[in-house]
Amino acid sequence: MILSTKSTQKISLEEFLQQAETKPAREYIDGKIYQKTMPQGQHSTIQIELASAINQQGKPKKLVYALPELRCTFGGRSIVPDIAVFEWQNIPRDASGKIANKFESHPDWIIEILSPEQSANRVIRKITFCLDRGTKLGWLIDCEDESVSIFKPDRAPEVKDNEDILPALSVLEDWQLKTADLFAWLTI
Amino acid sequence: MILSTKSTQKISLEEFLQQAETKPAREYIDGKIYQKTMPQGQHSTIQIELASAINQQGKPKKLVYALPELRCTFGGRSIVPDIAVFEWQNIPRDASGKIANKFESHPDWIIEILSPEQSANRVIRKITFCLDRGTKLGWLIDCEDESVSIFKPDRAPEVKDNEDILPALSVLEDWQLKTADLFAWLTI
Repeated sequence: MILSTKSTQKISLEEFLQQAETKPAREYIDGKIYQKTMPQGQHSTIQIELASAINQQGKPKKLVYALPELRCTFGGRSIVPDIAVFEWQNIPRDASGKIANKFESHPDWIIEILSPEQSANRVIRKITFCLDRGTKLGWLIDCEDESVSIFKPDRAPEVKDNEDILPALSVLEDWQLKTADLFAWLTI
Repeated sequence: MILSTKSTQKISLEEFLQQAETKPAREYIDGKIYQKTMPQGQHSTIQIELASAINQQGKPKKLVYALPELRCTFGGRSIVPDIAVFEWQNIPRDASGKIANKFESHPDWIIEILSPEQSANRVIRKITFCLDRGTKLGWLIDCEDESVSIFKPDRAPEVKDNEDILPALSVLEDWQLKTADLFAWLTI
């Protein structure tokens, strides 16, 4: 989620990265800084449930790993996807084999959860920026419409709802999540 | 613009079309009725200025014709794009050569203007429904972000802003509108 007000401040990516992290996180896009908004209940619920579900499928077999609110810096921007999913071999590691602290590559799959009053095009821009740089799949989750727009490189988006199976990364081929089941997590 | 509340009523397309028109218009999608919201100032301004600008370019040479709030019924749905643009030869006409009253074909170009609190995926669904059925171009205008997402069949969307030239239908090749110039219409 991103605040609607653009900062007029223009700084370099290096200067931006030297600044202290904030909560909610800030993103650096084309010389401007955008502050994400504080996640509300539905956003947080989908974020944690979906990341957990992906990891439950992807972690035991070392297929993928999903990380919420992870700063990814690449292509001259520094963004914080709601969920960034990496195929196992693409997870940045440090010299000792541990997970890296700095992620300087694109996620294989970016998941954004739209918040009320959030600018749609700003989120679409974040997803298409990733697709242009190697990300294979983008989800735009709209809790109000109970639907997910599916973005892939080189094709128009598709909107999934109700009983539609949500397309995941191909390494997760055994995983079949219906759109309705995603939004059922909101009913507790 | 579409209300956020889904009607639970399920009726046939024929039954829907027999009902009286309302203001704001209602749309029929997959057996459900969605009411568009009343356009607010920025929405109305962009809608009339853009439709006029397209017609100023497209009408004298009989290239295209832009119609705001036109009901288009095709592919089992009945939608009312904010602006529907038809190439000249595709404008439905009656037996006497006058413009038809009922439009039962897809526009060549659909333009949607996002309103605050409008569901992004519901608008994306409307655009991609058109693209799947022959529409060549979709614009999703976001006044808050001052950007336009460009949808075409068989490719991921692109988000245009600032000095970016907005891609129009190829028959309007002489027309070059910058994104910033579109939003400059809001400053009166």
